[in-house]
Amino acid sequence: MGEKGHAAIVTVGSELTYGLRLDTNTRDIASRLSRLGYTVAEAVSVADDLHALATTLKRLCAAYPLVVTTGGLGPTHDDLTREAAAKSLDLPLERDPKLMRWLESVAARHALGKASEQVFRQAEVIQGARVIRPTIGTASGQVVPTSAGKLVLLPGPPQEMSPMLDEIFGDAERSSTRILRCAGITESDAQVAVQEVLEEHPDISLTVLASPSLVDVVLVEHGHGDDIADAAVDAAAALGSHVYASDGRSLAEVVLDDAAQLGVTIATAESCTGGMLSAALTDVPGSSRVVRGGVVTYSNELKMSLLGVRQALLEQNGAVSASVAEAMAAGAAETLGADLTLSVTGVAGPEGGTDEKPVGLVWFGVAYRGETSSFSRRLPGDRAGVRTRAVVAALDAARKALGG
Amino acid sequence: MGEKGHAAIVTVGSELTYGLRLDTNTRDIASRLSRLGYTVAEAVSVADDLHALATTLKRLCAAYPLVVTTGGLGPTHDDLTREAAAKSLDLPLERDPKLMRWLESVAARHALGKASEQVFRQAEVIQGARVIRPTIGTASGQVVPTSAGKLVLLPGPPQEMSPMLDEIFGDAERSSTRILRCAGITESDAQVAVQEVLEEHPDISLTVLASPSLVDVVLVEHGHGDDIADAAVDAAAALGSHVYASDGRSLAEVVLDDAAQLGVTIATAESCTGGMLSAALTDVPGSSRVVRGGVVTYSNELKMSLLGVRQALLEQNGAVSASVAEAMAAGAAETLGADLTLSVTGVAGPEGGTDEKPVGLVWFGVAYRGETSSFSRRLPGDRAGVRTRAVVAALDAARKALGG
Repeated sequence: MGEKGHAAIVTVGSELTYGLRLDTNTRDIASRLSRLGYTVAEAVSVADDLHALATTLKRLCAAYPLVVTTGGLGPTHDDLTREAAAKSLDLPLERDPKLMRWLESVAARHALGKASEQVFRQAEVIQGARVIRPTIGTASGQVVPTSAGKLVLLPGPPQEMSPMLDEIFGDAERSSTRILRCAGITESDAQVAVQEVLEEHPDISLTVLASPSLVDVVLVEHGHGDDIADAAVDAAAALGSHVYASDGRSLAEVVLDDAAQLGVTIATAESCTGGMLSAALTDVPGSSRVVRGGVVTYSNELKMSLLGVRQALLEQNGAVSASVAEAMAAGAAETLGADLTLSVTGVAGPEGGTDEKPVGLVWFGVAYRGETSSFSRRLPGDRAGVRTRAVVAALDAARKALGG
Repeated sequence: MGEKGHAAIVTVGSELTYGLRLDTNTRDIASRLSRLGYTVAEAVSVADDLHALATTLKRLCAAYPLVVTTGGLGPTHDDLTREAAAKSLDLPLERDPKLMRWLESVAARHALGKASEQVFRQAEVIQGARVIRPTIGTASGQVVPTSAGKLVLLPGPPQEMSPMLDEIFGDAERSSTRILRCAGITESDAQVAVQEVLEEHPDISLTVLASPSLVDVVLVEHGHGDDIADAAVDAAAALGSHVYASDGRSLAEVVLDDAAQLGVTIATAESCTGGMLSAALTDVPGSSRVVRGGVVTYSNELKMSLLGVRQALLEQNGAVSASVAEAMAAGAAETLGADLTLSVTGVAGPEGGTDEKPVGLVWFGVAYRGETSSFSRRLPGDRAGVRTRAVVAALDAARKALGG
């Protein structure tokens, strides 16, 4: 890293400093710049305040060869980034005649009547800047030379920001980073396993990121060597079948790809996850080639009427049990006509837990080409956490059933 | 605002500056501090780098009466916030004997064998600091007096950070902020409608935040008057039935509360949303009192076998049509036995669009106590955007059907 030097990111908007909105631009830009070899030294969010913004930009532009801002490029009086950037660099703002004509034509096309003076604020360009025309919206980006390097101004809405990021920085190869995505292993076990093999790879640093039930093992090459590919192979070997993807695919994508390759169709029968498992699968474009459908049987009546679960089973063992999970999976295979069916039945909480069946206990059923099996997990977390982890556990069971 | 002065937030971690993880702590802390009357002047993310972190903390602690950090309080060599804070304030770190004993007992309880020297790094406290003991995890928080006010160190994992935030800052009333949550109205229409009534309320500022198909109208009182309640009433009147909540509830919660009050049960029949509508409803604790279940009929065969949609309808009008949406809703009422059933059938993309039925076209069916109706929307965005917007449109249709 560091070949291209240090960079800073500035996200502009009072909605960020009021805590009204989550900032995703910092992550997206930081990820892009890191992959290009920059070291992002700091990322700052500031309010729509001319003085504060100009002070921040002045400090960062003096310190770093690359500063990227998002937000504050629209037409309203709150949009102050152009003005603040000009002030911080001691450069004048000029109205770009080409941008003026374009904004006039856009206003005419949208029948906005009088294209107000406000709209034309978006034609103001810092002297010497390169203008990045928008493909979405009317806010242009700007690339401004600074004494230390350059200042890049991008609009705030992610769908407007992202194409400009592509245009300016290209779509970089992850040359110095590898991410091994794992399921069914804890963060600390993954850490220990990989740390050991990395003793052979002194230039590679390790970060382990955990989201509910999933672990990303991130390897970054710090030297100028080319050890990253070998390190990734060794780390993958240490992690074994816990690795489900090294190419950025999600667990649902891996399951769907494996199923498509085998010509297997999938269906779901959900209780506590309430449709989340089906939603995760159908989130993937083209999933209709594999996914037949699913049922959400929240009530016991529907478990009986839609999936043919026998009343005696529900009464003897309760809805959260191995036998009901298996009966749901087998019933779904019948009702929904799929080769592989997954069932989930558990106590998501916060209510409904007992000593015997506490909140977090989830039973899973898998029926695959006539064979039915089940397993249970005691999942930690609140309602959302239990549901999310249950979806991951079901998808990982599908991956294993398909031989992954 | 500003009664309590300015504040800064620092989120620590190379996973943030590498862009590997989304920072939600800044939003959560900024929201809390704003409600308490602080003005968050800047929020900074920095890498796990002792020098960079100490420099940032020194600058911010000199400038602001309140600085809150998250992250870097764990046991590993990457956890540098204690050391950096001590350095920036020119104060020594001391091992707290009570914390040492507690960490020993935790290690013994978890049978970690030799409680390593690493673990005891978490007992290091800045001289003069108040220790905030963790309710989750082993990383303590610290509140350190500074010349300008105080520096608060909190752990990074949101579930560890959040209880400490409560303990230190209390659970503030939203004294100076009101949020009107709206559906079925565009960001700019909401802006225009509310701007007009705010002419009568000069101390109230307006921010309009849009997420797919939902708009939050945020009113913030800037003076020391007490005009916020009246302004919120006037704004709500201007927005009419588009306002679905002024108490922070989600649209799904409003639908479930309305249904529970009327004694109405709900079920869903989904095609393009693939379970997301059902997942959104069952995401709410206690939803099992209202939600019976749902079906995801991705294939036409399942629309026929599970919902009784006639083959002739599918052949004549296609799956994405008013008549199939209505037949799905009516069939779901039959199959799932609910008072109110919602159906969704559309083209989520990226494939499957035609000139007549383009990507983004979605038909909705509503069956309520024997009456069935349908409507369509042409929804913008990519696959995820179309699906998310379709869920919102279906929930808003349920709200209206229930008289909301």
